[in-house]
Amino acid sequence: MVNRVDFSIIRIARTVLHVVDLQVSREFYVDGLGMIETESDENHIYLRGLEEHSHHSLLLKKADNAVVEVLSYKVEKEEDLDEIEKLFTSLGLQTKWMAKGQQHAIGRTLRAHDISGIPLEFFAEMTTVDRMLQRYDHYRGAKIQRIDHVNCSVPNVQKAYDFYVDYLGFSCSEYTDTEDGDLWAAWLYRKPTVHDQAFMNGPGPNLHHFAYSLTDRLSVLDCCDILASMGYAESIERGPGRHGLSNAFFLYLRDPDGHRIELYTGDYLTSDPDLKPKRWDLNDPLRQTFWGHEAPDRWFNETSTFIDIETNEEIGICNPILEQRKPEILA
Amino acid sequence: MVNRVDFSIIRIARTVLHVVDLQVSREFYVDGLGMIETESDENHIYLRGLEEHSHHSLLLKKADNAVVEVLSYKVEKEEDLDEIEKLFTSLGLQTKWMAKGQQHAIGRTLRAHDISGIPLEFFAEMTTVDRMLQRYDHYRGAKIQRIDHVNCSVPNVQKAYDFYVDYLGFSCSEYTDTEDGDLWAAWLYRKPTVHDQAFMNGPGPNLHHFAYSLTDRLSVLDCCDILASMGYAESIERGPGRHGLSNAFFLYLRDPDGHRIELYTGDYLTSDPDLKPKRWDLNDPLRQTFWGHEAPDRWFNETSTFIDIETNEEIGICNPILEQRKPEILA
Amino acid sequence: MVNRVDFSIIRIARTVLHVVDLQVSREFYVDGLGMIETESDENHIYLRGLEEHSHHSLLLKKADNAVVEVLSYKVEKEEDLDEIEKLFTSLGLQTKWMAKGQQHAIGRTLRAHDISGIPLEFFAEMTTVDRMLQRYDHYRGAKIQRIDHVNCSVPNVQKAYDFYVDYLGFSCSEYTDTEDGDLWAAWLYRKPTVHDQAFMNGPGPNLHHFAYSLTDRLSVLDCCDILASMGYAESIERGPGRHGLSNAFFLYLRDPDGHRIELYTGDYLTSDPDLKPKRWDLNDPLRQTFWGHEAPDRWFNETSTFIDIETNEEIGICNPILEQRKPEILA
Amino acid sequence: MVNRVDFSIIRIARTVLHVVDLQVSREFYVDGLGMIETESDENHIYLRGLEEHSHHSLLLKKADNAVVEVLSYKVEKEEDLDEIEKLFTSLGLQTKWMAKGQQHAIGRTLRAHDISGIPLEFFAEMTTVDRMLQRYDHYRGAKIQRIDHVNCSVPNVQKAYDFYVDYLGFSCSEYTDTEDGDLWAAWLYRKPTVHDQAFMNGPGPNLHHFAYSLTDRLSVLDCCDILASMGYAESIERGPGRHGLSNAFFLYLRDPDGHRIELYTGDYLTSDPDLKPKRWDLNDPLRQTFWGHEAPDRWFNETSTFIDIETNEEIGICNPILEQRKPEILA
Repeated sequence: MVNRVDFSIIRIARTVLHVVDLQVSREFYVDGLGMIETESDENHIYLRGLEEHSHHSLLLKKADNAVVEVLSYKVEKEEDLDEIEKLFTSLGLQTKWMAKGQQHAIGRTLRAHDISGIPLEFFAEMTTVDRMLQRYDHYRGAKIQRIDHVNCSVPNVQKAYDFYVDYLGFSCSEYTDTEDGDLWAAWLYRKPTVHDQAFMNGPGPNLHHFAYSLTDRLSVLDCCDILASMGYAESIERGPGRHGLSNAFFLYLRDPDGHRIELYTGDYLTSDPDLKPKRWDLNDPLRQTFWGHEAPDRWFNETSTFIDIETNEEIGICNPILEQRKPEILA
Repeated sequence: MVNRVDFSIIRIARTVLHVVDLQVSREFYVDGLGMIETESDENHIYLRGLEEHSHHSLLLKKADNAVVEVLSYKVEKEEDLDEIEKLFTSLGLQTKWMAKGQQHAIGRTLRAHDISGIPLEFFAEMTTVDRMLQRYDHYRGAKIQRIDHVNCSVPNVQKAYDFYVDYLGFSCSEYTDTEDGDLWAAWLYRKPTVHDQAFMNGPGPNLHHFAYSLTDRLSVLDCCDILASMGYAESIERGPGRHGLSNAFFLYLRDPDGHRIELYTGDYLTSDPDLKPKRWDLNDPLRQTFWGHEAPDRWFNETSTFIDIETNEEIGICNPILEQRKPEILA
Repeated sequence: MVNRVDFSIIRIARTVLHVVDLQVSREFYVDGLGMIETESDENHIYLRGLEEHSHHSLLLKKADNAVVEVLSYKVEKEEDLDEIEKLFTSLGLQTKWMAKGQQHAIGRTLRAHDISGIPLEFFAEMTTVDRMLQRYDHYRGAKIQRIDHVNCSVPNVQKAYDFYVDYLGFSCSEYTDTEDGDLWAAWLYRKPTVHDQAFMNGPGPNLHHFAYSLTDRLSVLDCCDILASMGYAESIERGPGRHGLSNAFFLYLRDPDGHRIELYTGDYLTSDPDLKPKRWDLNDPLRQTFWGHEAPDRWFNETSTFIDIETNEEIGICNPILEQRKPEILA
Repeated sequence: MVNRVDFSIIRIARTVLHVVDLQVSREFYVDGLGMIETESDENHIYLRGLEEHSHHSLLLKKADNAVVEVLSYKVEKEEDLDEIEKLFTSLGLQTKWMAKGQQHAIGRTLRAHDISGIPLEFFAEMTTVDRMLQRYDHYRGAKIQRIDHVNCSVPNVQKAYDFYVDYLGFSCSEYTDTEDGDLWAAWLYRKPTVHDQAFMNGPGPNLHHFAYSLTDRLSVLDCCDILASMGYAESIERGPGRHGLSNAFFLYLRDPDGHRIELYTGDYLTSDPDLKPKRWDLNDPLRQTFWGHEAPDRWFNETSTFIDIETNEEIGICNPILEQRKPEILA
């Protein structure tokens, strides 16, 4: 077993989504949520949050089907990519190189499927741009600040946990287990927040949601009002509310293609090495929504589909190894 | 028909509730919601909001059953009480006088059942106390500011509307009607806000909820967090959310006896005489929760029972004249 | 003495300002403060707040000098205008009629100089427009809701107070007097808030500021950030802070012509007839900024000049009858 | 020159202040600011923020003079302490060991004077306690979350910068230099926020202020209201306002002994290794208060005095090497 990583993953860096109508997506993400459009052409929109100095953290590609192409991680330096390739190859996991320039605004990239089949990519370099943090005259909608995390449904959370903690160097901030001691869900981080990557027990691999960090709770409420005024009330799926897990104040939205985005604010720093992972019992009512609200069925049942890094075919789904129970899967 | 009132009702002034355990109620209303306890004895707690200079706006009486004794209106002057008695008597409605001193901290009082059977009381005088508005060191919980309105379920909204507008001098800010032009719900005011009194089509007369005005939306969110920390997550029934009707940001809570209280902030001034009542179509999705959330069944089905001003017996309930439809009764 | 008014003034309704560059003013008021531009032509911009159903509450007129043309009050009905004319004429005060249509979007108007020489106007009718309250997608800047009050510097506050209370039917919510019992400043209202009109001891008559009501404190802070981003940091004159008087959270800005506007939120309802005026001692430190900050000199010394209703000449200024003391005139 | 550190400093961990009256300090820090009192005895109060799982981040010791005993840094592991001792000794800097148990709730500690003479201490271990993050029923005052940074006035900022960056492994997020390229002020971090330690050109070494992180801007405003209600308006020294540097929303308070504490919220993550230090020109007006307010003289001129780690004598002060200019030293 490899449990000493020879590379450094910095943080979740971007999500690449396929969407069917770029103009509709622009209205939702730029006018509704307040993301900054760094650049676009007829087939792509590159979006970032107000705090971000990286070129983009969300890439929307025009396509026939609304799927998820890849989840991207930024690493510290170029050589880390080679080390990561060695690791994935040694474990028999599929990889693929993309040369610098092959993807706009980012350097040499390693794509790979992780232990659950999730399509990941790693790169050390992304074009930097001006931070818009103090351009308050450009603040709109939810005033999205920066990418926070992604959350995937996988059939075997323990297996995913072991891969990310033992091989990729992630730490665990909080987790849920069943009365039998089985790991039900886990919140894992590289950057010093509650998570970059969460896993929940469910059919998968699927993307449950990707999340952006906001400055405060009122930005979440403002976003609800604005989306409703724009005719997007149906996009508001769950919340606003307070998570027990992570303590964050949250709102779940469905974008025009059905991809789920979480607006998220108010977790805590995890930079202290003596911080112990916080255990939650699957049956603790505070674990789910701290205020006791139930999530709607569609939050529970619907996810986005990943595609293969080589074939672009939709990835096959496996059933979870732990029996699904609605109240327990809430995050 | 009398359509010229010879008296002036100022505003909704208090709610008198029967509760089974004063100490439990105190924890909820004082520690959780942040009301100020003006005074109490072993059978009563007198509560007010931070802005209120009147002795109390909520009177809790220890009793065996959790019912609503009366809804109270403040009038401009003593003689108004006599005029109101004349009106009620002329319409064959039951009345009852209570001498000054018979109820703690308030003057001579007229009790009466309104046209729907709701037990009301009218008085011109209540002991005044210091406003706590600038005692920020006493702010707690939801930082409740002042009583805002009461909302009753009645079988015939049109009849209630006519009585309050034509006989009692109320104005209408907003209302809902059906596709057939039947009045489904109405928001009526004396003080220059959206309402003192709302009526909704339903079995009745019943008290659906009473409501307090807060300074801002974060006070609502803070209250959810605080109640959940105190073990009262189950008290959070509906919201937080934004109303289409009234535009207010809201939260519905159930107190330890099941009485429903709304925390309410962000409606608008109605002091302009040329303000036209705003009509909402029963099928307009924005009318209900502006963000598109559904209300839970218990919000729809459960109300508090009124008692008779003479016998203290529970008041009999009639079915509504318009067919009930869940999505439409949301407020 | 007349102390029974035969007319009803509803509220402060608009301010008419002369400005030298309409495009610069638009940038400040629309982009910076978030006012809605109802209409404009090459010489006028008509602005309103998000809650307002009246055509405008701020009229900017292109002119060579930045002065104040008139402060406008809305009355209940047409006949009130004739009663008000009788009153002003009986007191020897100058008046002038403007026919309906002579001013865009408002009805027949009576202009007059009040007892201190302030140019006022009264009208019953203004074109109504859609309230933008629920068009959250149009919210910008400070999200200005509605006109709140005007504040004038006058040489004799007692004389102004007597005129507004005894002849025009205003009530007093709060006031300041000196150790000798002289009235230093007064907050007077018709609509049920702390004030429509305030008077402070000083050279005058001058307009010290006009004020708009916001929904919450964060809108004030957001406005500071936005103005600073736009290059308007120098417009931020005083605050944000909390007033002792009125309890409002405030910010004073200077518009591109030097007119002072206050953003104001968090006072209280004054609709209860048994509310007693609150006295503040001139030497009470809480009276001024509740947090103890001093106002800058320019807030103290600079005001806007009124012009004559007939000649459009600048109105002559008298020195105050009470000796000016900087700390005491803060509002 | 050593520029490869063989130890890892985690973050600023605590401030140890001498105060003359513990009960007065408790009222200020616990009732006013909302800190949690972990423990106390007749000569000590141990305080922490709501998010902190460490025993305390502020230690108040009863003493005759209000001075600063030490600024504390947490390191990753015990052996780091020995490496740090080697470094300090090799540079001829004074050190002192304190055995585990010698100070309540913390492990073996190395005390030392840094290159500017500031008394520091390093430890790897502090007793852990329950995080109060989700005990919203205990939230009070400013709802202080966690220690953020300390800011010292030193005579030679370049020398301090070199020591912290080259020897202690800090990174620079933002800095100010003069037109001649001299380093005027620097913001240095170990934990991934804008700073743990800032230096400003001035007489020193002195502690200018220590700072706590809050969740949002309203907590800052609430704190002003609460302190003013409690009679502490004079403690409010500067702000609330927005910093250009760091982007944080801030408030400076003076505690009952005159120590300066900053309430701070809204900076940004610095975990990306490709983040470049942001340069500010000493003459950029946005650099100081983003809204253009000037700091009062006492913010500029008054600081807290450090004492010697061996003798407890007050440390001698040197004049700054760069000429002091009031507007430029604002932070």
